[in-house]
Amino acid sequence: MGCVVDGCPAGLSLCTEDIAGELKRRRPGTGELFSSSRSEEDVPEILSGVFEGKTLGTPIAIIINNIDQKPGDYDELKYLYRPGHADWTWEAKYGFPDWKEGILSAIARTGRSSGRETAARVAAGAVAKTFLTAHGITIKSWTAAVAGIEAPQPGEAGFNLEETKNNPLCVPCKKTAEQINAKLEELKAAGDSAGCLVACRINGLPAGLGEPVFDKLDALLSHAILSIGACKGIEFGTGFTVAALTGLSNNDVPALPPNYAMSTQNNAAKASATFKSNNSGGILGGISNGMEVFFRAAFKPPPSIAAEQSTIDRSGNPVRMAIHGRHDICLAPRVLPVVEAMAALVIADLLLQFRQNIGKHFQTSF
Amino acid sequence: MGCVVDGCPAGLSLCTEDIAGELKRRRPGTGELFSSSRSEEDVPEILSGVFEGKTLGTPIAIIINNIDQKPGDYDELKYLYRPGHADWTWEAKYGFPDWKEGILSAIARTGRSSGRETAARVAAGAVAKTFLTAHGITIKSWTAAVAGIEAPQPGEAGFNLEETKNNPLCVPCKKTAEQINAKLEELKAAGDSAGCLVACRINGLPAGLGEPVFDKLDALLSHAILSIGACKGIEFGTGFTVAALTGLSNNDVPALPPNYAMSTQNNAAKASATFKSNNSGGILGGISNGMEVFFRAAFKPPPSIAAEQSTIDRSGNPVRMAIHGRHDICLAPRVLPVVEAMAALVIADLLLQFRQNIGKHFQTSF
Amino acid sequence: MGCVVDGCPAGLSLCTEDIAGELKRRRPGTGELFSSSRSEEDVPEILSGVFEGKTLGTPIAIIINNIDQKPGDYDELKYLYRPGHADWTWEAKYGFPDWKEGILSAIARTGRSSGRETAARVAAGAVAKTFLTAHGITIKSWTAAVAGIEAPQPGEAGFNLEETKNNPLCVPCKKTAEQINAKLEELKAAGDSAGCLVACRINGLPAGLGEPVFDKLDALLSHAILSIGACKGIEFGTGFTVAALTGLSNNDVPALPPNYAMSTQNNAAKASATFKSNNSGGILGGISNGMEVFFRAAFKPPPSIAAEQSTIDRSGNPVRMAIHGRHDICLAPRVLPVVEAMAALVIADLLLQFRQNIGKHFQTSF
Amino acid sequence: MGCVVDGCPAGLSLCTEDIAGELKRRRPGTGELFSSSRSEEDVPEILSGVFEGKTLGTPIAIIINNIDQKPGDYDELKYLYRPGHADWTWEAKYGFPDWKEGILSAIARTGRSSGRETAARVAAGAVAKTFLTAHGITIKSWTAAVAGIEAPQPGEAGFNLEETKNNPLCVPCKKTAEQINAKLEELKAAGDSAGCLVACRINGLPAGLGEPVFDKLDALLSHAILSIGACKGIEFGTGFTVAALTGLSNNDVPALPPNYAMSTQNNAAKASATFKSNNSGGILGGISNGMEVFFRAAFKPPPSIAAEQSTIDRSGNPVRMAIHGRHDICLAPRVLPVVEAMAALVIADLLLQFRQNIGKHFQTSF
Repeated sequence: MGCVVDGCPAGLSLCTEDIAGELKRRRPGTGELFSSSRSEEDVPEILSGVFEGKTLGTPIAIIINNIDQKPGDYDELKYLYRPGHADWTWEAKYGFPDWKEGILSAIARTGRSSGRETAARVAAGAVAKTFLTAHGITIKSWTAAVAGIEAPQPGEAGFNLEETKNNPLCVPCKKTAEQINAKLEELKAAGDSAGCLVACRINGLPAGLGEPVFDKLDALLSHAILSIGACKGIEFGTGFTVAALTGLSNNDVPALPPNYAMSTQNNAAKASATFKSNNSGGILGGISNGMEVFFRAAFKPPPSIAAEQSTIDRSGNPVRMAIHGRHDICLAPRVLPVVEAMAALVIADLLLQFRQNIGKHFQTSF
Repeated sequence: MGCVVDGCPAGLSLCTEDIAGELKRRRPGTGELFSSSRSEEDVPEILSGVFEGKTLGTPIAIIINNIDQKPGDYDELKYLYRPGHADWTWEAKYGFPDWKEGILSAIARTGRSSGRETAARVAAGAVAKTFLTAHGITIKSWTAAVAGIEAPQPGEAGFNLEETKNNPLCVPCKKTAEQINAKLEELKAAGDSAGCLVACRINGLPAGLGEPVFDKLDALLSHAILSIGACKGIEFGTGFTVAALTGLSNNDVPALPPNYAMSTQNNAAKASATFKSNNSGGILGGISNGMEVFFRAAFKPPPSIAAEQSTIDRSGNPVRMAIHGRHDICLAPRVLPVVEAMAALVIADLLLQFRQNIGKHFQTSF
Repeated sequence: MGCVVDGCPAGLSLCTEDIAGELKRRRPGTGELFSSSRSEEDVPEILSGVFEGKTLGTPIAIIINNIDQKPGDYDELKYLYRPGHADWTWEAKYGFPDWKEGILSAIARTGRSSGRETAARVAAGAVAKTFLTAHGITIKSWTAAVAGIEAPQPGEAGFNLEETKNNPLCVPCKKTAEQINAKLEELKAAGDSAGCLVACRINGLPAGLGEPVFDKLDALLSHAILSIGACKGIEFGTGFTVAALTGLSNNDVPALPPNYAMSTQNNAAKASATFKSNNSGGILGGISNGMEVFFRAAFKPPPSIAAEQSTIDRSGNPVRMAIHGRHDICLAPRVLPVVEAMAALVIADLLLQFRQNIGKHFQTSF
Repeated sequence: MGCVVDGCPAGLSLCTEDIAGELKRRRPGTGELFSSSRSEEDVPEILSGVFEGKTLGTPIAIIINNIDQKPGDYDELKYLYRPGHADWTWEAKYGFPDWKEGILSAIARTGRSSGRETAARVAAGAVAKTFLTAHGITIKSWTAAVAGIEAPQPGEAGFNLEETKNNPLCVPCKKTAEQINAKLEELKAAGDSAGCLVACRINGLPAGLGEPVFDKLDALLSHAILSIGACKGIEFGTGFTVAALTGLSNNDVPALPPNYAMSTQNNAAKASATFKSNNSGGILGGISNGMEVFFRAAFKPPPSIAAEQSTIDRSGNPVRMAIHGRHDICLAPRVLPVVEAMAALVIADLLLQFRQNIGKHFQTSF
């Protein structure tokens, strides 16, 4: 498992620990409930692009060695199409293997659609985050709902982001965390799993990021987040609720700072404008407006469950199956660093494209 | 306004009428309620890539001439930042204009974030649709909700797709259409507008479309749909509901056809496999699984409303404003052909990349 | 015929005349000898991206209307594969047409490999040139050799770039121009045509353009120039002569300006460094070094000649043929604005990617 | 050092030895004369994309470990700008380092423009070659000239490709090899180095590869070959000689096989057409015509020489310098596998894009 990050500017401090820290958030927890017991120890190694603790501006290749890998775990499943997994679609795409030797190859390939590949995303995202931190940009996600139990939203009573540090699920409300915990224990007993909702906010973003017409900021974020396995939807600002709103209730009113009229030559002053509400989630016309960017994404329940399910085997015979071993009962909280990583990569790319100074030069020259 | 479609294979029948037909669906209706009265007559002209009614395989350039354009309409707004519009973010991105001559330039630029640009998407999508039709693939969208009033969903009582032809809003239920109509008349009287939900299904898609890891089918569709102005969210299959589901209730069970075991050499037979439910919306691991692809997208209420709103002018002074002229009260139904066009372009691209035969060749050769 | 130029910054002065001026250089001359008598009148029209004489930062679509087009000219050739033309390779690529109706379609497609398409390159290049001129960058090409008769090179006796204005072939030496003229009259009498060598210099380029590893400045220029039909080779600086040189004779010695030691914080001062010779043609390690960029390209003799040739028809029968009408006897001088246009597009792209200021910011911040 | 090859189809046999074999050709020889004595042992390791000796269709990551690396070799040069090296242009591009700590970082970065990076190209090319071999496509290069001494060309007396196996320089003529050897010994005694010319032929290519208008086959090959450090020019077929030819002498006459008229429905038969000469180097209109693709590339003399040279140090002071250690006296023969690798990567990419079957389907369906 590995990744290559190209385009990172030179001179940034970057060390293995920066990456290991993010990877650790992606590891299964130690608790009974919340996670797979495959205690994966992800050890990142920087192969290129960093010299004496500073990035060189050249491609950064990172390898993630996994100490605790047991490929034999899946042996008994290799003749089946697991429900909710990509076993079948990968074969439909890349070719159905011959009986004898092909199965292992198919398993190996399907591995690419497993949750393991998100380690590479998190490692790359750690590099992007280092870049964003240097620009005062922060990305913070939390578990907004599990199994239909929703935590309070920002601005609502009971919402407390500090609380995410106190419960392993990263729910921003102690009471909701307890309710979710109880529900998950129930599901676990039944050999079942739970879907979840992840919320994410990006702060410190300058106005002006996002490329019309087709690479709008929200379009790029959607592409990135939906590329995470198991993600089934994304929404920005008021999101799907917007379908029930009206122009009057949804429009955010602009409010420039008082010194605006005196600084007509100064983009910086104008760029500090603000809005009286943030229904748009910080994006207008596909471009960041300087407010907090806010989005939520839905993740399906992990398809690997202990409860017995129907399916067919690779010969087409109907069979009953159960997936042994211990798998994640819910993608939250492990998917949080993945969501943040993908968002960080999108924002870092856009920031590098945002040639504010060139634009300014043109304005004054012509 | 125009577009260039590159990569369309040679030999397809394509004429101006194919494009004009789709553009017509995007025009404001003739009714009192549903649309802007700017009766835009979009006349497409094919400049290249088609010869004697057949595509040549070379880039197809299309220009859309608008007979009824009145650029003077926006004169009184040019000193203001309209709430909910991209006026301010475009300036933050491309530079705040000098007072005198810059305003018109700013207006002209902002025009690129106006709904007008969707005409080019629809024209390009018409070419893609012609290609998809030749492969037996159809794309059909409808208005699923307006102003919080939801129509029945597929499979629910009252859902009737034929009904979309009988009401200008394209709602698949006569009763819901009437309720929405009443609500919209109420909003219109108040000078307000309404958000909406659009549903879209893609049928006839072969299994195997979508490129892991980052260009999953749902990721590409999200990118494309979110690039449409005013779109605030997208969801696939059970969508955000998935956060309340469990593995057992959400997993779709595979079911291959009876002749499966006899055709182990034959991808085509295997590719005709099916699933007992379609919670996934036809996409597993980012790859089409041969079932109907189903997604829904939320669009915000049009920000241009007759009701008085607060904002600031380009000098930063707070002002009250109202947007005269008649604008769309809801993006549905005009946004439907735009959604279909973007989906068609994504699917056509993937279909051209889907080198099934090359894959097959490799399997037998090595 | 047309083009779309995306990425051009806002605020540049651009009008139809800028484009028409370059297109005029590409037109056949009025003289007896040097050119086709198809007196093509190319009239460019800017469809988008320019408002009141200034670029908007949005895509600039340009259409080139040709007043004097006579598609019937090629009728008698449509059953033949013309030697030296792409008739056959286009069919091999895109499919051999059915007998009756397919021929015209094939002709229409092959048109895309005709010299006509260079009009679009020249139009796009005119936009790029406007951008480069604003940055003090100039591109100047001339005819370096025709039919084996070479003009003096820069630095050699007899080389006079002003002379290119005095002879229609744009040869930088009066005497050579006369020799070439005589040779061409001879070839014309024989119904034959001539190959040529084009030289091009780019001045005012900042050091630092070119992206290692794969998008080196010379690699990008080669890609662009070789994409011009009939180009068979490119060389930089001493070019192919380099194979006969040694390290001592070929290495260019760096020489920084006297104030170098005092300006260690100042990239601008260092960037004004120079070299004592320019064998490299202004490119070291794929990156511009601030010296003049110099390259030469070889173009084959136009394959359309009046002399009788052997070939086969579309049924495979051997035939004798002669191409009537009057065609270019040599690609120079008409190819000169095309070479400059492609070079201008490459340089403009690189200049826009050259984020000197962002780089500087990083240096001071970290 | 490493590379990631994406897009390689599944099912190809690939092992470490395939890659090691190509890397070995890139190693310095054991002889006294021809090469650097840095006896680099390149040991490739396949990290992903291959399972039980077969490619999986997923990205193939390869790392090249170098056993004999001594980074201290360059210590004494780190304060100088070496003539003919990219030291200065890299600093102009990426920023001039601070005095104390920056130098090492600059050295590390410049390493990316060193000949070492070609190991990654050769490794990736080895994968591409495996793919091409399976399609009957071969790529063979040789040393065509060194220090101005040219070997006979194909078709000329004395040309014998088998001879390249008998002399370490890979010259296709015993006598020329001896002459070059004598010249190189002379240059070596003088502490100097030599430029060279490399010829390359690609056989077995189907007609139809190359994408008009901008990604012509020759344009793509030029981009790839000029991206190799020290390459100063490329020419196809008759190359620069074409400037002295005429239409009659340069046009290649098509000749279809006798059974042509009977196979009008069959692209395969037509695609077996041939030409009576190959001045074009196998490319017409930017598309392969089924003949041998032939190109030659010029490489400058290695700039690292033992003879004393003038230059400046990083403070701008003029200094005299000599580069110790033993470096390549000529880029041939070590650059041969690099040229072949870049050509193989271009051809493999085009072959994967060549959707002959899709095209055929369209012809029959519409």
